[in-house]
Amino acid sequence: MSTAPTGRMLIAGEPVLGGGARYRAVDPSTGEPLEPEFAHGGADEVARACAAADEAFRSYRNTTGQQRARLLSAIADGIEAIGDPLIERAHAETGLPVARLTGERARTTGQLRLFASVAAEGSWAGARIDPAQPERRPQARADIRQRRIALGPVAVFGASNFPLAFSVAGGDTASALAAGCPVVVKGHDAHPGTSELVAGAVAEAIASCGLDPGTFSMLFGRGPDLGVRLVTDPRIRAVGFTGSRSGGTALLAAANARPRPIPVYAEMSSTNPVFPLPAALAERAEEIARGFVGSLTLGAGQFCTSPGLVIAVDGPGLRRFEEVAAAELAGAAAAPMLTPGIARSYAEGVSALADHDAVHVLARGSDADQPHGCRPALHVTDAASFAADPALHEEVFGASALVVRCSDATEVRALAEALEGQLTATVHADGPDHPGAAELLPVLERIAGRILFNGWPTGVEVGHAMVHGGPFPATSDSRTTSVGSLAIERFLRPVAYQDVPADLLPSAIADGNPDGIRRHVDGELGTR
Amino acid sequence: MSTAPTGRMLIAGEPVLGGGARYRAVDPSTGEPLEPEFAHGGADEVARACAAADEAFRSYRNTTGQQRARLLSAIADGIEAIGDPLIERAHAETGLPVARLTGERARTTGQLRLFASVAAEGSWAGARIDPAQPERRPQARADIRQRRIALGPVAVFGASNFPLAFSVAGGDTASALAAGCPVVVKGHDAHPGTSELVAGAVAEAIASCGLDPGTFSMLFGRGPDLGVRLVTDPRIRAVGFTGSRSGGTALLAAANARPRPIPVYAEMSSTNPVFPLPAALAERAEEIARGFVGSLTLGAGQFCTSPGLVIAVDGPGLRRFEEVAAAELAGAAAAPMLTPGIARSYAEGVSALADHDAVHVLARGSDADQPHGCRPALHVTDAASFAADPALHEEVFGASALVVRCSDATEVRALAEALEGQLTATVHADGPDHPGAAELLPVLERIAGRILFNGWPTGVEVGHAMVHGGPFPATSDSRTTSVGSLAIERFLRPVAYQDVPADLLPSAIADGNPDGIRRHVDGELGTR
Repeated sequence: MSTAPTGRMLIAGEPVLGGGARYRAVDPSTGEPLEPEFAHGGADEVARACAAADEAFRSYRNTTGQQRARLLSAIADGIEAIGDPLIERAHAETGLPVARLTGERARTTGQLRLFASVAAEGSWAGARIDPAQPERRPQARADIRQRRIALGPVAVFGASNFPLAFSVAGGDTASALAAGCPVVVKGHDAHPGTSELVAGAVAEAIASCGLDPGTFSMLFGRGPDLGVRLVTDPRIRAVGFTGSRSGGTALLAAANARPRPIPVYAEMSSTNPVFPLPAALAERAEEIARGFVGSLTLGAGQFCTSPGLVIAVDGPGLRRFEEVAAAELAGAAAAPMLTPGIARSYAEGVSALADHDAVHVLARGSDADQPHGCRPALHVTDAASFAADPALHEEVFGASALVVRCSDATEVRALAEALEGQLTATVHADGPDHPGAAELLPVLERIAGRILFNGWPTGVEVGHAMVHGGPFPATSDSRTTSVGSLAIERFLRPVAYQDVPADLLPSAIADGNPDGIRRHVDGELGTR
Repeated sequence: MSTAPTGRMLIAGEPVLGGGARYRAVDPSTGEPLEPEFAHGGADEVARACAAADEAFRSYRNTTGQQRARLLSAIADGIEAIGDPLIERAHAETGLPVARLTGERARTTGQLRLFASVAAEGSWAGARIDPAQPERRPQARADIRQRRIALGPVAVFGASNFPLAFSVAGGDTASALAAGCPVVVKGHDAHPGTSELVAGAVAEAIASCGLDPGTFSMLFGRGPDLGVRLVTDPRIRAVGFTGSRSGGTALLAAANARPRPIPVYAEMSSTNPVFPLPAALAERAEEIARGFVGSLTLGAGQFCTSPGLVIAVDGPGLRRFEEVAAAELAGAAAAPMLTPGIARSYAEGVSALADHDAVHVLARGSDADQPHGCRPALHVTDAASFAADPALHEEVFGASALVVRCSDATEVRALAEALEGQLTATVHADGPDHPGAAELLPVLERIAGRILFNGWPTGVEVGHAMVHGGPFPATSDSRTTSVGSLAIERFLRPVAYQDVPADLLPSAIADGNPDGIRRHVDGELGTR
């Protein structure tokens, strides 16, 4: 069990020192570089990892759900076994609080165990059997069976803002492994040590389960170089990505330009609009304002689901909300951002808002006593200005939000309809607001992957019903989710078997249901 | 009930004469133009149809499964009610035999009724409920529910080779309507009269069900012009297409270049390889050869699933197969092809094979006594030449097939691995072949959407287990099928509802299961 990073990538179980640019992680709370030195990989390492994944796919795709469940559980155990050194390293590399990282680790291992149960349960195979009807006229019906199979090796891109839950062994990796796909991760340069430690746990779990070491590799490198190489390698058959809009759309373009295009599941950009309705504002503007600022400033606003937009009818309720939110935000402590680049982008985004003719500052947080600190920001504009300028619709990654004052509920709905795709949309509504909420709901369904009432979008529950997705540019594929058990479906495709002899049928669709899974027989679901 | 075409498109229930190029359908068996004159639409008609579909989506998306089932059944009834004039018009426009078209009509109405049952059954909603856990520590769990909703208006492109089953009211339209999506069809210029008659039946069914007429429109126009306009209209949210590789990839590129990309389900190109294994060839080469030629020449080979490639170990069995197939094919009657353009492309494709240095003619069918006839063709080459020249891997649409002689089973598998994505792969195997078939099967799973044993790929059963799909370029999205009940999933996406008040919840995920559908509660499937 490795508890101290060495600077190595991991290719099919082997530690590998890259031949490319050397670099160190930076402690964002001090700006100081951390030991050890890491090194980027390049074309050679991509080719080695992809060849190993392709070879491993031959055996790994045929593992049973139980075998995959054991692997996923072993990875979860291994991550826990690293213990405090993992949390300490992640804290040093990201500046995120230890309590938050401890919670994120629990979420990560919980996610791995959820996918273990999903893999073992077997419904992911989508087994369907339409038995032969030799007597049917005018033509006999053949025996036709269907199951879902793994797509092939998957490239996963670790995100900067969740060094555990959306990184090396996060939801993309867990769901791809559950589906039967080997994984090649591009670790994020903002937390290479954390990445190396987790990759080591994955490799040990694979070895302990007796699986092909090529089932998992983890590389370091620049996105436009190593990342694009990975996505365009012909052996890679799907991509999972969480990050910026520019990064995600670049990978999407590269994948679409392949001779054989592949699916890209990129989770990119969302302003996560909040709609406090009039009765709720009249009744509890203060409570909503405090909850809002708490969600906005959590983790320095570095969440995909951070609430960056408030759209509401102007009036005493909204003004009271603004007043309380401004006061709360002015008192919010500055927090270090994940990387110098993120802090710079945040400062530029907030400056652009502050300089906008139609935008006014409601509040700024206290000045950051840190090299890369986030000074929270709250601005306000009017509906006409917001509608007229697409720049005001763009996400500022970090604790920045914009309030849009509307003249009436119709204007609120019109603005909502004109928004780009969102991961979440939040409504605050009391009883008298329900008729208005009923009119707003169909609009929100069309723009968002998750709709919440009287809560806050940060904190994405990992369960069966969760959707962490939504229309473009929230994600590149609104038909899916990257969080929750449904995420496994991203890495599967259906195959039909017609009159295949009984001794050659895969067990998921074999006679007598040897896997004991749920199957559709002539469209009827059961365990036949 | 209209039984004679008038030359009109149909926009939201209104007959509309296009302002673009005038043309007549051509009877391919005589080359003579047919009455009446039709006219292409353009930007105005696309905008009108898409605006009407977008408006209709507001109400149609909220129809119940039962309402959609009534609509789909009414469309099926309406198509049947047109009676013989529909078959006669389709025969005149396509040259396809009346018996084939009668069967295709039954398949089309059967497909509509299958999707009626799927819509009514309700599992398409994918209802999932993770109940709140207010006592959970460290954090309470919110109430989270999930259902799938319709993507929005869908553009459907009619195919030339199935004037009913893959055209105006074919599988794409049926599954989109079942999912809650309005449809705008681009009718195929090869059978505009058939298209108009069927569109009339759809419009009447929509009216009789009291639904918004904008739920369906049908336009005529050129692909690069009207087709691309349709795919790039911002109100269109998904595309269903069956046709050529060049047409499908052009629409895919247009959809990917939109500011907000949308899914394209294009079914394009497949050579449908056949693998007769040694024992089967030794035992029944004649029977396999006859079945093969029957499947190859069916409908002049104008099927997506026509078997255009035979890969087998050379030897007396394969030579006997070639001999019998050549004799059968030489005696096969020429049949008219669907359009002059298809006949020209076919002739060019066959000439290119005949002129290839490493390819030899095994047989040609008798000369066509028709202006656009298909003269079946069977060629042979060796494995090395096939492996070396990608041009030999390309589909020749029509009754043309290439036999590839291999030295052993390893070479057969290597060639199979190097094939592009396929709709189907067919194995002929007797008992002694099973060990070899078991080695071949995993290779075929990776390249094809459907694997058949001891049968022929033409004739795609419409059921629950069918997959009419496969890796690129068979389709643009291997995760789906365009035939069978699973096709509805192409037009849906999941949305999560967190702590949404009971009176605002959609019925699919409301308390007490008012829709009486199957739902996952905490991951357990049931009818709670």
